[in-house]
Amino acid sequence: MSLIIGIDPGSRLTGYGIIEKDGSKLRFVDAGTIRTETTEMPERLKRIFAGVDRIVKFHGPTEAAVEQVFMAQNPDSALKLGQARGAAIAALVNLDLQVAEYTARQIKQSVVGYGAADKEQVQMMVMRLLDLSIKPQADAADALAAAICHAHASGSITKLALLNALGGMARGRSRGSRRR
Amino acid sequence: MSLIIGIDPGSRLTGYGIIEKDGSKLRFVDAGTIRTETTEMPERLKRIFAGVDRIVKFHGPTEAAVEQVFMAQNPDSALKLGQARGAAIAALVNLDLQVAEYTARQIKQSVVGYGAADKEQVQMMVMRLLDLSIKPQADAADALAAAICHAHASGSITKLALLNALGGMARGRSRGSRRR
Repeated sequence: MSLIIGIDPGSRLTGYGIIEKDGSKLRFVDAGTIRTETTEMPERLKRIFAGVDRIVKFHGPTEAAVEQVFMAQNPDSALKLGQARGAAIAALVNLDLQVAEYTARQIKQSVVGYGAADKEQVQMMVMRLLDLSIKPQADAADALAAAICHAHASGSITKLALLNALGGMARGRSRGSRRR
Repeated sequence: MSLIIGIDPGSRLTGYGIIEKDGSKLRFVDAGTIRTETTEMPERLKRIFAGVDRIVKFHGPTEAAVEQVFMAQNPDSALKLGQARGAAIAALVNLDLQVAEYTARQIKQSVVGYGAADKEQVQMMVMRLLDLSIKPQADAADALAAAICHAHASGSITKLALLNALGGMARGRSRGSRRR
């Protein structure tokens, strides 16, 4: 059994999600966002660092996953996003967590089964895989998706086991009335 | 009297410099680089964070200055630089330092008296202002320059006092044989 934290850093909103991996089972533990919209950059980075630090100290995850960014957006937003990532990853590595990085495509492939899935599909599959009755906020969902991707990649859950556990859900069949 | 740390973050080399400001006098305390060339990004960020954290804890600066980046370079390098900045600034703010940001132009204007000065001119003026006998490595010099800019900006050293102290040096006159 292990606890995995996923982080989706952003200069305005940083999503986080924690899941428990128990053999082939995944269980939702916590998710949310660290909001940093209204302050100056050093203060934003302080909140991101302190937020991730607090969450890691509270839950004590043993593994961490962050979405790796490859994008052709403009340098200004790349710089802002980079700083947010830097502060978030610094908080993780400062507490001696190994940080695994996955591309958006890898995460979508792992969670939805389709590397070009949209945000809505990711949110829906995160809900199904973790048995959530409420749709998580988009950044929190992305953070949970990174954690799920890491759970799959780390091998104790094989793709096959996952597909068996899911049945036809990835193709849209309802999972019925199970709720957390 | 106050201690100012300047940081020049980079994904391969992060320069740092510490100066003491005593009335209108500036004194060199420490400078160097945190080298992170050979490792993966999370490990680099860990080294940057840990390096800045250690330096701040060792010297106990009360003020911090970092060069603010505005550049039209490509998004990839902006993202890398951003992450390095994020980790470095997180280390500063995590220890409750206020971080002042200055543009490269402001720093050059403050240190060299000319906003478009080149790296060599910055290094030379840093040597003169801090009475160094050895030319600091370029990133360490940029970090010291950020700290000097902050010392000037924070008001206890006026531009005039600085110019008086320097005499004609900014225009290239040798300071003679004073060495540290």
